[in-house]
Amino acid sequence: MPLTPDAKGVFPIAPTPFLDDGSIDTASIDRLTDFYLECGSTGITVLGQLGEAPKLEHAESVDVAARMIQRAGKLPVVVGVSAPGFAAMRALTREVMDRGAAGVMIAPPNTLRTDDQIVGYYRQAVEAIGDDVPFVIQDYPLTFSVQMTPGVIRRIVTELPSCAMLKHEDWPGLEKISTLRGFEKDGSMRHISILCGNNGLFLDYEVERGADGANTGYCFPDMLCDVVRLNAAGEREAAHDLFDAHLPLLRYEQQPGAGLAVRKYVMMRRGLLTSAAQRKPAAVMSATARAEVDHLLRRLARHDPRAALE
Amino acid sequence: MPLTPDAKGVFPIAPTPFLDDGSIDTASIDRLTDFYLECGSTGITVLGQLGEAPKLEHAESVDVAARMIQRAGKLPVVVGVSAPGFAAMRALTREVMDRGAAGVMIAPPNTLRTDDQIVGYYRQAVEAIGDDVPFVIQDYPLTFSVQMTPGVIRRIVTELPSCAMLKHEDWPGLEKISTLRGFEKDGSMRHISILCGNNGLFLDYEVERGADGANTGYCFPDMLCDVVRLNAAGEREAAHDLFDAHLPLLRYEQQPGAGLAVRKYVMMRRGLLTSAAQRKPAAVMSATARAEVDHLLRRLARHDPRAALE
Amino acid sequence: MPLTPDAKGVFPIAPTPFLDDGSIDTASIDRLTDFYLECGSTGITVLGQLGEAPKLEHAESVDVAARMIQRAGKLPVVVGVSAPGFAAMRALTREVMDRGAAGVMIAPPNTLRTDDQIVGYYRQAVEAIGDDVPFVIQDYPLTFSVQMTPGVIRRIVTELPSCAMLKHEDWPGLEKISTLRGFEKDGSMRHISILCGNNGLFLDYEVERGADGANTGYCFPDMLCDVVRLNAAGEREAAHDLFDAHLPLLRYEQQPGAGLAVRKYVMMRRGLLTSAAQRKPAAVMSATARAEVDHLLRRLARHDPRAALE
Amino acid sequence: MPLTPDAKGVFPIAPTPFLDDGSIDTASIDRLTDFYLECGSTGITVLGQLGEAPKLEHAESVDVAARMIQRAGKLPVVVGVSAPGFAAMRALTREVMDRGAAGVMIAPPNTLRTDDQIVGYYRQAVEAIGDDVPFVIQDYPLTFSVQMTPGVIRRIVTELPSCAMLKHEDWPGLEKISTLRGFEKDGSMRHISILCGNNGLFLDYEVERGADGANTGYCFPDMLCDVVRLNAAGEREAAHDLFDAHLPLLRYEQQPGAGLAVRKYVMMRRGLLTSAAQRKPAAVMSATARAEVDHLLRRLARHDPRAALE
Repeated sequence: MPLTPDAKGVFPIAPTPFLDDGSIDTASIDRLTDFYLECGSTGITVLGQLGEAPKLEHAESVDVAARMIQRAGKLPVVVGVSAPGFAAMRALTREVMDRGAAGVMIAPPNTLRTDDQIVGYYRQAVEAIGDDVPFVIQDYPLTFSVQMTPGVIRRIVTELPSCAMLKHEDWPGLEKISTLRGFEKDGSMRHISILCGNNGLFLDYEVERGADGANTGYCFPDMLCDVVRLNAAGEREAAHDLFDAHLPLLRYEQQPGAGLAVRKYVMMRRGLLTSAAQRKPAAVMSATARAEVDHLLRRLARHDPRAALE
Repeated sequence: MPLTPDAKGVFPIAPTPFLDDGSIDTASIDRLTDFYLECGSTGITVLGQLGEAPKLEHAESVDVAARMIQRAGKLPVVVGVSAPGFAAMRALTREVMDRGAAGVMIAPPNTLRTDDQIVGYYRQAVEAIGDDVPFVIQDYPLTFSVQMTPGVIRRIVTELPSCAMLKHEDWPGLEKISTLRGFEKDGSMRHISILCGNNGLFLDYEVERGADGANTGYCFPDMLCDVVRLNAAGEREAAHDLFDAHLPLLRYEQQPGAGLAVRKYVMMRRGLLTSAAQRKPAAVMSATARAEVDHLLRRLARHDPRAALE
Repeated sequence: MPLTPDAKGVFPIAPTPFLDDGSIDTASIDRLTDFYLECGSTGITVLGQLGEAPKLEHAESVDVAARMIQRAGKLPVVVGVSAPGFAAMRALTREVMDRGAAGVMIAPPNTLRTDDQIVGYYRQAVEAIGDDVPFVIQDYPLTFSVQMTPGVIRRIVTELPSCAMLKHEDWPGLEKISTLRGFEKDGSMRHISILCGNNGLFLDYEVERGADGANTGYCFPDMLCDVVRLNAAGEREAAHDLFDAHLPLLRYEQQPGAGLAVRKYVMMRRGLLTSAAQRKPAAVMSATARAEVDHLLRRLARHDPRAALE
Repeated sequence: MPLTPDAKGVFPIAPTPFLDDGSIDTASIDRLTDFYLECGSTGITVLGQLGEAPKLEHAESVDVAARMIQRAGKLPVVVGVSAPGFAAMRALTREVMDRGAAGVMIAPPNTLRTDDQIVGYYRQAVEAIGDDVPFVIQDYPLTFSVQMTPGVIRRIVTELPSCAMLKHEDWPGLEKISTLRGFEKDGSMRHISILCGNNGLFLDYEVERGADGANTGYCFPDMLCDVVRLNAAGEREAAHDLFDAHLPLLRYEQQPGAGLAVRKYVMMRRGLLTSAAQRKPAAVMSATARAEVDHLLRRLARHDPRAALE
């Protein structure tokens, strides 16, 4: 079941679970996958930017993706295959597609500057992986330093029919969604799925602007599912109320570099991960930071009982 | 009354008010200054990163600063003097210090990379402006692409006695505050004032980590003053409650590039500015964006009556 | 006599001469200007990237430009007006145009990324300075980190009729010249002058590719004039022979940061400058570096007697 | 025979030879290796920045390195193992060390900024590959955007005993060599080998400053060997004469991006490579560029008969 431009809902970005000794925690992979299914996710993305992919040996990457694909059953699983060279990208793509992946996600290398370089890169990537593999553009200038205008995205979407989705995490990004949906309306660009990342920091208004949902790793993916669902159901203020209750923690988790430790810590406290361990090199969470997250959870629990973890 | 390392509280970053025809709006400068005084600010910073300083002719810059200095009376006014060359920095510094400024703020040029380059830059800046002028380090890697470790800040503070304050807006930045305050405790660095920027996105925990307050331009500086005051008074949960109520709007205003239009729009709606106009080049606010801000204000007004602007 | 798209030959980039005490050395400005005239220059550019413009107070900048303009007589003088804000750019432009400048040179700020941002920047610059002022695009990605494709340059040239010249210093840059001249041939871009910078490192082949000459500051501008002249006269191998003899020194002077000290040192030894002094902050030349330059000059003197300086 | 800090001479950077169909050209690997041996190289570096490593599948990388190691016999072979993650770096290091590599070369990722980040990165890399594997620091800010001060290099060398060599390609870089050798003289840093890259653009003076030789891929590695040998033999002017004769071509080949095509083209013309093919994505050489290189070779042949290729 390949990824299509009609994808909607929430594709959580899955962290890669490790045990304290650094080995891959397969039990947590299964538990996490089951949780994503139960809370209403419509897909999963694995080995993304915060999936610690560069810390995995090639065979481990394939194993992690394959296990999640199998466990997820009918849910489409997208696999991050960004790599410094097209040889590694092609190799990983082939192996995960053979194991049932729905598509792959490709981030631009941080050396790209001009519009032509960006479009050219995606063209070459598709040549490498094959034009039968659905792919996701990852548009995350904060991390990748690559700035794609709406016009550049339109060029990629138009030139490359296998582009199925935009993982939108530009910042600011609200007008970009409106512009892209405007391109669809005026007939200058075909429809693609737009799911939003950047930890969901603007998800409340992104869905109102026309985004199809979320594609990010916030430690309460169930909240993301609820917000998308409430918005779709026309319950605007309820969606904002829930989102706003989570915003203090969500913002805390969104800190670059430091955020993954927060995410894994909360997911461990929620019983989703056995351990909050990251493979080295890893940002360490101080005792003060842990106390701050505990404080944020206690405050959140007044509004959302799922945060009552004691 | 020069700026000292003991500064505490809130130094709002003042926008530069313009009328719709692009001329400087002196009435709004006065109104804004009065408002800062009334709501409990302990200082003001003018011609900062979001003060549209590069759009002012030199004489205009001096006039804007001088008017605010005079109106602010005993309140210390810090003037941003960042410039591509030391000649311009020195010229502006002299003129505003002659007119009663309490000190100047200096941001590093975005070409600096190594620790030695950063320390060397501030050394040269002090040579240029004179070591009798108190200065503020602006540490804002998100905008300036210059990364200062705590060790580098310690070197600057130790080598240059005229350094009085750090405008802290690193992100993530909580551990940095703890580290710097740790340096003071272990005797390896003298005390300086740390006021936090980045639109106050982490002010709730920054003051708990040891920051002395805020130095940012959020459209409700009165909220910033309240949060700092509540925290100092030991009313932790009340501080967080107020902060969290503002966070959805605050986050919206913090968007790089787009944020200044939001700030001026809300300040106009609050009656502080006659017009939300920016000089060109300016990011324009769409009708949808304005509606989103109005929505955020309505939701905020349920918690903070100051946001009830209709 | 305004700058036109038909400009050809060599516009040396003039250094700003200082005396050892840091004051502006007006006698050397005159001597330098006279030398440029005598050796066959067809124009002069002042206050460029290596003219130490950021170290000059505004009034000094105007004085330096005005003095050179007056001394140069009928020779067109282009003035660098790059600035962090359009207010300063407009102010300097007006003053030097009033004093007889032929046009201005504008470099893009190093924060520009996308094609649209670059074109938009030049559009705004022209709005600021007025569309009656001929301007030069400075395309120097090595220093400014802004990458302009040939297509972007064509957009600027087409949209902005006051664009008269490209200071071409992309690297690699030979194909870019061929592409731009191709645009002229296929009728998709009007003709502009292309003069080459980057210290002339590829001038030998750039003129063969269709460039109109040089616009750079190498310490032997007379060699640049000769090479352009020999090439125009069809004496290809003679042009290369002379160029190759200079290449070891030229390459040494082209070192970023360190090069200006080399340039001023040689110009002092040639009797063009009274002093090799730079205003602070300045890269200092070690005794070993001076000995290396002396060695390079001795070796060069075997081929070009102008380098025999003892 | 592991790499030691006493390494001297020339370690050419080997290109990876491909046939026109993109397959690896093992015959050319052998021919190239034999040539390096015959012309006086003292080592070889394979899979470097211009070895097209990112275009090789993992198994291919191991095969290319292994074949060259075996063919090179007693000559030490260093293998580039730079990778976006430590897992891939460790995996490749283990496999090539098992096959007889003398050491590995590690470039810093282009996201590193502060001194501590750079030192920390090499510390983590050594943890990953093992402290028994000799490694080379690649200091190439032009390509990697990472600026290492002499002090940072000293910290790495001092903290990590397995650091054997610096591939020095900073630009400007002459004073850096003097400073590092000064550290050795004043006893603050142990001795390491310094071999120079950046296509040898300053090799003439680098060896005079104390560098031990070259580690770069210029299409006449035999010239590099001669220059290092002549300099060591005290024949200074002869070394410069030979170097200067090559400088026009060397400079042409040093163009970023475009240079590899030039290198492979000349090596094909010299009979070292069967084909000049690169794997995609590859910069293509225009007919004009080929004619320019032919012209450069003809001119060079007047001084160095090895360039007479007709």
